[in-house]
Amino acid sequence: MTQATHPQLRSTAATFTGLKCKECGAEYEPKAIHVCELCFGPLEVAYDYNALRRMVSRESIQAGPHSIWRYRPFLPVETDQPIDVGTGLTPLVQAHRLARRLGLKKLWIKNDAVNMPTLSFKDRVVSVALTRARELGFSTVSCASTGNLANSTAAIAAHAGLDCCVFIPSDLEAGKVLGTLIYSPTVMAVHGNYDQVNRLCSEVANTHGWGFVNINLRPYYSEGSKTLGYEVAEQLGWQLPDHIVAPLASGSLFTKIYKGFQEFIQVGLVEDKPVRFSGAQAEGCSPIAQAYREGRDFIVPVKPNTIAKSIAIGNPADGVYAVEIAQKTNGSIESVTDAEIIEGIKLLAETEGIFTETAGGTTIAVLKKLVEAGKIDPEETTVAYITGNGLKTQEAIQGYIGEPLTIEPKLDSFERALERSRMLDRLEWQQVLV
Amino acid sequence: MTQATHPQLRSTAATFTGLKCKECGAEYEPKAIHVCELCFGPLEVAYDYNALRRMVSRESIQAGPHSIWRYRPFLPVETDQPIDVGTGLTPLVQAHRLARRLGLKKLWIKNDAVNMPTLSFKDRVVSVALTRARELGFSTVSCASTGNLANSTAAIAAHAGLDCCVFIPSDLEAGKVLGTLIYSPTVMAVHGNYDQVNRLCSEVANTHGWGFVNINLRPYYSEGSKTLGYEVAEQLGWQLPDHIVAPLASGSLFTKIYKGFQEFIQVGLVEDKPVRFSGAQAEGCSPIAQAYREGRDFIVPVKPNTIAKSIAIGNPADGVYAVEIAQKTNGSIESVTDAEIIEGIKLLAETEGIFTETAGGTTIAVLKKLVEAGKIDPEETTVAYITGNGLKTQEAIQGYIGEPLTIEPKLDSFERALERSRMLDRLEWQQVLV
Ligand SMILES: [Zn+2]
Ligand SMILES: [Zn+2]
Repeated sequence: MTQATHPQLRSTAATFTGLKCKECGAEYEPKAIHVCELCFGPLEVAYDYNALRRMVSRESIQAGPHSIWRYRPFLPVETDQPIDVGTGLTPLVQAHRLARRLGLKKLWIKNDAVNMPTLSFKDRVVSVALTRARELGFSTVSCASTGNLANSTAAIAAHAGLDCCVFIPSDLEAGKVLGTLIYSPTVMAVHGNYDQVNRLCSEVANTHGWGFVNINLRPYYSEGSKTLGYEVAEQLGWQLPDHIVAPLASGSLFTKIYKGFQEFIQVGLVEDKPVRFSGAQAEGCSPIAQAYREGRDFIVPVKPNTIAKSIAIGNPADGVYAVEIAQKTNGSIESVTDAEIIEGIKLLAETEGIFTETAGGTTIAVLKKLVEAGKIDPEETTVAYITGNGLKTQEAIQGYIGEPLTIEPKLDSFERALERSRMLDRLEWQQVLV
Repeated sequence: MTQATHPQLRSTAATFTGLKCKECGAEYEPKAIHVCELCFGPLEVAYDYNALRRMVSRESIQAGPHSIWRYRPFLPVETDQPIDVGTGLTPLVQAHRLARRLGLKKLWIKNDAVNMPTLSFKDRVVSVALTRARELGFSTVSCASTGNLANSTAAIAAHAGLDCCVFIPSDLEAGKVLGTLIYSPTVMAVHGNYDQVNRLCSEVANTHGWGFVNINLRPYYSEGSKTLGYEVAEQLGWQLPDHIVAPLASGSLFTKIYKGFQEFIQVGLVEDKPVRFSGAQAEGCSPIAQAYREGRDFIVPVKPNTIAKSIAIGNPADGVYAVEIAQKTNGSIESVTDAEIIEGIKLLAETEGIFTETAGGTTIAVLKKLVEAGKIDPEETTVAYITGNGLKTQEAIQGYIGEPLTIEPKLDSFERALERSRMLDRLEWQQVLV
C-alpha cells in the first residue's frame, strides 16, 4: 500500500470534490468506500461543474489522447499520468445495411467489441478504477466478475504491475476463463452465482484491504461508463442522438451514459435535447424489464438462466435508476429469448461485419423488437451500444452458424460444393418467401 | 461486376501510376493481375513520389481519419470513400515491464491484436484490397486463408455488402472457423495445406472472375501492410526505430514495413537512418530462417508442423526478399519451438496485459532469443510487431496456463485457497532460483 514505486504520479487540479450519497445526499471524502453510512445508499462521485465549464472545451478534448483519457477532467482521478492502454474512442459505425434490414434510416453502432485491451466496455471502467486504486495506494486489485471484468482487470493490472486476484463463477464460458488466466492473476472460481460471489468479495475487501474495482472502488469504477456517452456525442459531431439502446446488467452502464449526456449539456459542450433511453435484457434474467413492464419502483431479484451470462445479474444494484430513466425519457425496456439473442448476433455480423457476444446479441434483438413494435421512429438518430466481443462466447453460437463445405483441393470438387451451397441458399429463400 | 450500386465512389487524383514487375521492371495497367507475363515475377504498385512529396505533410496526415486511411495517398486506391471500419492506428505501447524482464531499455509493442474489426493485421490488407476490388468492379471477393485473413475478408465484405467466399484448410483452429462463419460467407474447407488451397484459388479466380484478395488483387492487398511502417514512424514522433522484430509467413509483411519506412524517408516525412530488420518463424515451419542461416538466396519449401498456423507457409512467396532485407539491414532471422511460442504468449500477457495468438508468441520468443544472443542492443529503440489476438488460438495454450482455484462462496474456503496458491508461488520461485 505504498505509492513510492510510482514517482510519475503527479496530482493536478482535481475537478471532483468528493463522494455523495445518491439517496440522502450525505457527503464523504473520496476514499475507497461505496455505501452511505447513514442510509446505505450508493455513493457517487461529485464534481465542480463550474470549474469544469471553465476548464474544458471541444478543442481541449480533441487535443487530448485518442482514448477515454481525453475526458480526464470528467473522471475521478487526480493524476495526469493515468493507466492508458488505448482504451476507448472505439468506432461509431453508421450501420447502413443493418438499418435497411430493420427499416431504420439513421442507425449507428457504438462498437466496444473492439475496445482495448480486452474487447469489452469493461476496459473503460477498469482503466479508471485501477488508476484511482494506484492513487489511493492499493497494491492488490480485485473484482467479482461474470467474465469480461475479470479479463479486463487481469490485463490492465498486468500492464500496470499491480497484484491481482479475480473472482468468477465456476460455470463461466471457457474463453473468458482462459482470457483471464493468460495474464497470470490469482483466479478464484466460486461455486455460486454472481450475487454470492459479490457478497464473498465484500468480505475479502474488508478483511484483506484489497481494492475491488466493482465494490469498494465502485464509485470511481462506474464513472468510466460515462465515456460511452461522451464519445457518442463527440463522434456525432458534438450532438446528442435521439434514441439509444443499451444492455442492462446491473443498470450502471445505462445510468452512466445518461449522466455523461447530462454533464456535456451542463458544461455547454452539446445542446440540450431529449434523448430516449431503451434498455435490453435477456428473458432468462430480466428483473429490470419486469419491473418496467409492471410499473414497479423496486426490483424483484431473479435466478439467472440465459446464455447472456455477462449481463445475467439477478439482483441489479442500479435497476431502479434504469427504470426511472427509461420512463422519464420515453424509452422502454424489453427482453428477448436466447434464440432471439443468437439471431441478433448473426444479424449484426452478416450486415455490418461486427461479431459481438451474447450481450450485444441481446441489444440487437431488442433493437429489432422495438422497431417492429413501433417504439423506435425510422427517422430517429439511434445508437445501439455493442459492449463485448463474440470470440469470448463462442459456445453460445456453436451449432447455430452452419459448417464449412468440405472439399478436395480440386476445381471439380469446388464446383460441386458451390452448386450445393447455392441450391441451399435458394431453398432457404424460398422458405423465407413462403 | 458493376459499380452502379456504389454511386458514392468518386475518383480523385491517384498517386499510383500502375503495376511494375519486381524482377524485370515491366509495367502494367493497375488491373486485377499479379504476375509478370514476361518473367513470372510478382507485380508491385508503383507511385509517383514527386507528386506524393508535394501532396503530403505530417499535418495533412494528422488531419486525416484515425485509421489506415490517413495514409490514403500512399495506398493503391482512387476513391476518397474507402471502406473504413476503423482499421489501423492500433496502439504503440511502451513495454516497460517486458523491457525490464528482457533487459532492454526502449521496447515498444505495436499491438494489432486489437486491430479493427477482426483483431489481426489482416484487416489492413483486406480494407485496401476490398476497396480496390469495388473500384475494379468485383461483386464477389474471396481469399485463401490460414484463418485471420478469412475472418477479415468475411467481416469487411459483410460490412461493404460484397458477396464473399473464403477457402480455409480443413484443420483450422475452431475459433478461426467460427469467427468466419458468423459473417455468413460461403466457406470452403479444403483437405490440403495452405499451398494447395492457394493453387485451387488461382484456378477459381480465373474461371469465375472473382477478386481474390491475396491472389489476383495481391499487389493492392499487400500494400496495406505498409501502414504498419507508417504508423510506427508517426507514433514514435515522426522518427524511425532502430530495430524491428516481426513475424515471417509469406515474408510480405516484413518487406512492406521496410517499404513503408523507405517511402516516408523518400517523401521527407522522416529522417533517413538505419533500421535493423529481424524476422521470427516457428521452427516447425521455418524455410526463411533456414535460408538465412545457410546464406542461401533461394527458399527450400517445407511441410508445416507447428501450432503457429497463421504463419505456417511452407513455400513463402516473398521469403527471398525477407532474407535480403535482414541481411542488408544487419538484422537476423530466428526460429523458436512451439514450447517457446507458448512461453512467449504468456510472457507478453503477464508483463503487458496483451493477449496474442501464436504468431505473436513467436515474435516475443524470437525477441527474447535475440536479446539473449546479444543481437539486440539494450539501448536500441526496438519495436516488436504483434499481429493477432490470442482469443483466436485458444487451443494452443489450453493446458499450459493453469486452472482457477475452485472455492465455495465462503471466507474460510477463500482463505485456504489463497494460502495454497501463495505456497505454490513460493515453490515455483524456489525452483526458479535453484
Ligand atoms: Zn445516504
Ligand atoms: Zn517481369
